[in-house]
Amino acid sequence: MGKVIDDYSTLMKRFKDLSLILSTEAIIQWDTETKLPPGAFELRAQQQALLSRLEHKMSTNRGIGRLLERVEKNSEYDSLNEMQKRNAHLIRKNYDEATKLPERLVSSLAEQQVTSYNAWKKAKAAKNFGAFKPELLKMFELKREAAERLMSVKGVSNEYDALIDFYEPKITQFTISRTFDELKAGLIPIIGKAASASKEGCQSTLDFRMPVATQKELSKSLAKYIGYDIESEKARGRVDETEHPFTTGYFSDVRITTHYFEDNFLPSLFSILHEGGHALYEQNMREDWIYQPIGTACSYGFHESQSRFVENMVGRSAEFWSAFFPTLKSLDYALADAKVESMVRAVNRVQPSKIRIEADEATYSMHIIIRFELERDLFSGKLSVEELPQAWNQKYSDYLGVEVKDDAEGVLQDVHWAQGYFGYFPSYALGNIYGGQLLEKLEKDLPQWKSTISSGNFTPIRQWLTTNVHAYGNLYNPLELLRRVTGEEIRPSFFLNYLDSKYREIFCY
Amino acid sequence: MGKVIDDYSTLMKRFKDLSLILSTEAIIQWDTETKLPPGAFELRAQQQALLSRLEHKMSTNRGIGRLLERVEKNSEYDSLNEMQKRNAHLIRKNYDEATKLPERLVSSLAEQQVTSYNAWKKAKAAKNFGAFKPELLKMFELKREAAERLMSVKGVSNEYDALIDFYEPKITQFTISRTFDELKAGLIPIIGKAASASKEGCQSTLDFRMPVATQKELSKSLAKYIGYDIESEKARGRVDETEHPFTTGYFSDVRITTHYFEDNFLPSLFSILHEGGHALYEQNMREDWIYQPIGTACSYGFHESQSRFVENMVGRSAEFWSAFFPTLKSLDYALADAKVESMVRAVNRVQPSKIRIEADEATYSMHIIIRFELERDLFSGKLSVEELPQAWNQKYSDYLGVEVKDDAEGVLQDVHWAQGYFGYFPSYALGNIYGGQLLEKLEKDLPQWKSTISSGNFTPIRQWLTTNVHAYGNLYNPLELLRRVTGEEIRPSFFLNYLDSKYREIFCY
Repeated sequence: MGKVIDDYSTLMKRFKDLSLILSTEAIIQWDTETKLPPGAFELRAQQQALLSRLEHKMSTNRGIGRLLERVEKNSEYDSLNEMQKRNAHLIRKNYDEATKLPERLVSSLAEQQVTSYNAWKKAKAAKNFGAFKPELLKMFELKREAAERLMSVKGVSNEYDALIDFYEPKITQFTISRTFDELKAGLIPIIGKAASASKEGCQSTLDFRMPVATQKELSKSLAKYIGYDIESEKARGRVDETEHPFTTGYFSDVRITTHYFEDNFLPSLFSILHEGGHALYEQNMREDWIYQPIGTACSYGFHESQSRFVENMVGRSAEFWSAFFPTLKSLDYALADAKVESMVRAVNRVQPSKIRIEADEATYSMHIIIRFELERDLFSGKLSVEELPQAWNQKYSDYLGVEVKDDAEGVLQDVHWAQGYFGYFPSYALGNIYGGQLLEKLEKDLPQWKSTISSGNFTPIRQWLTTNVHAYGNLYNPLELLRRVTGEEIRPSFFLNYLDSKYREIFCY
Repeated sequence: MGKVIDDYSTLMKRFKDLSLILSTEAIIQWDTETKLPPGAFELRAQQQALLSRLEHKMSTNRGIGRLLERVEKNSEYDSLNEMQKRNAHLIRKNYDEATKLPERLVSSLAEQQVTSYNAWKKAKAAKNFGAFKPELLKMFELKREAAERLMSVKGVSNEYDALIDFYEPKITQFTISRTFDELKAGLIPIIGKAASASKEGCQSTLDFRMPVATQKELSKSLAKYIGYDIESEKARGRVDETEHPFTTGYFSDVRITTHYFEDNFLPSLFSILHEGGHALYEQNMREDWIYQPIGTACSYGFHESQSRFVENMVGRSAEFWSAFFPTLKSLDYALADAKVESMVRAVNRVQPSKIRIEADEATYSMHIIIRFELERDLFSGKLSVEELPQAWNQKYSDYLGVEVKDDAEGVLQDVHWAQGYFGYFPSYALGNIYGGQLLEKLEKDLPQWKSTISSGNFTPIRQWLTTNVHAYGNLYNPLELLRRVTGEEIRPSFFLNYLDSKYREIFCY
């Protein structure tokens, strides 16, 4: 048996290739969404299929299995440091999971993704779940089969936990149920009070058009403010336009997108902050961890904590608006007479609604809790795919007091299930909860954080986020990272307190 | 031995993957030139190196060698049709060439490309060949070694022929020398007369600024005019900006670039036409030949014949300008008083100069002849790398009557040699010659071609080009294609006659 470090190094060289192909796939996917001529979708589908076949081949290559064994069984294994052990562990996890799924199932899932997605699109346009149901059922069964096969290697006792583990490693539905119940109980009174206090809103403040060219200037200012460089000669990012904003890329090449609406500049403003928060996470990992498993994000929920931190905790704060308002006014004269207080109220208005992606900061988590409960009940067998629309509508009525009129604004609104992304939704609300706990810690470490925001200086906060989240990459699982950074287990109370006191202050109740 | 068609089909499936990875590489390269954040070049270099490693692996995979043998030695081989045999031949050629070069040489060449390129850039900025010389020498020796190894499989008797064969299959330096000598002899009097007749030029016609936004509108009109769709819902192309214009892509996704200069709209206008001509070639091959070797261009020279046909034979014709002038005037009021005759004279002005990419239509080929003669003499040993600058300057003085003042405007002006592209230059002038012969045939087939241009209808010409060039893909080698389409061997007289009569008409001599 040779030196453990030699096999480990060979293993890492293999992983570098995998990182490179994954990051190339990300750019090709970005191109598909932003630049691809519309006549080229068929060619592009073939190119993407080839890349993912190559990626799968790399991940499941038996040479990786042999190298892993040589590393793990080497008597010198303990001479590896914490980071090296974590890298080996993450490659092992990826390898075991990838080799656990038979080729047949992987390609059935890939095909079903296309079929379900198309069926979903049509059904949504026709506002009729019925047309989507058979394809959703097939997707659900395939995902359940995959989950069942992964249970042992993931060390979980039920299918839904196996799926959640892709997004939030080592968090179970039991923990999420307990946490979300507490979150729900806390949100109800907050939503009630804030919604009634913000009813007499300042929406008229927003009643003007801002040319797209101006909004593009605004995007540049916002990106600069948060330290997401898209303009200098060392820029490592860029902003483009898509229907739905997203972030993609790797280290020095992390790209975000936004969508401009002439009659409302806020969606673009907040998506620049939101996606910018994601981008900062990817860009500010330790450079020396590039091409290593630890040089990736901790979890989807932690990713979401970063985007929501910048979008909401910073971007909807009175301090941010007082700092940013002069810039905004200088860009658009229509705002000359606007008052910053009205603006802050307008962007914090709470109003239960039916569409998740348009929800305010307080009700947003409720949309997620509904989806989590439905997924959980689907996988436990308590609910059938058939019963989904009705259960959906009932929960919207019970939890948010809104009446869903058709499936397009109900169960068909999101693409996730059509894509087979069961277990993904919880991460969005976990991101809020992590964010609340991070904020609590930030307040201790940087008591003057609010005044740095109002003075227009985001740098100390970005540095704090880098030190406390970005720089850890994927060294720990999410609950472990949370514990190390905040000293706490997962608890929604911090997020709830933050919301409650913000609304009390802004809406004076 | 199984059915030949089965092995052939497996072979073609392998080739499809190769086409997909090559076309993906093209898009990534496009992204590097047009969209990549400047901080991401190092990451991108790694991604591109991985893709080219994967591509090389696919091309040299032994399974391909075995399949080729099974196809070639099968007693039913003759049951394959002409296209299938050509496909097998082209895959064989690619495989034999790729496997002929040792790994060491391939990676030395790749590394030397980077080193030479950087040395060239610095040397050009310093206007000093000396700093580039050692790296050029290394590149030259590596290319000579590669060429020597390829001679037998390419069936040629000297190194330079082996290199030319990459760009113009089955054309030798002997044929090129003979053809270029005739071209040179014919060009000298044409350049002499046209240069003196066009001296009293109409350059003042061009003395105005056109905003980039207007030039972008102009680009759209030009693309639409030639049938390069960048705007419809079925668009299969797009236009972006780079320092040096280029075309890249595959079938349904063929992208061109241009460069806008506020003080002169002509470079962009002509590059849209030039690159558009390249793009039409790639887009209008037979759809059923996609993912097959025959579904690629015949040669670099034929590619250049298409771009130069659209740029020069169409784009510098009096008919094009009379058709396009109203559009141009409507886009820019500064042109309101301009006369179309002055414009035609301005864009056809002949004036010997030192920089190839700025040369007019008549002197352009002379720049190429100079480069060809230098390359030929380098490989024959008649000239050393050391003597290049002086030989270059001497030929510029002899053939074009211009005095080169420093290496930046002399031997260092082009990037080709730094990249190792020896044997590439001849294709540019061969493109002019092919173009002249194609034009002769077009005049017979479509005697009214000029009036269709002046009536603003490019479609019949585009269709003629598709039928006579694009649709043949890579079914024949260039001289064979020329013979089949025009019924002639390669002869520069058609191109010379075209130039001579155009200048006589425009400059009235």
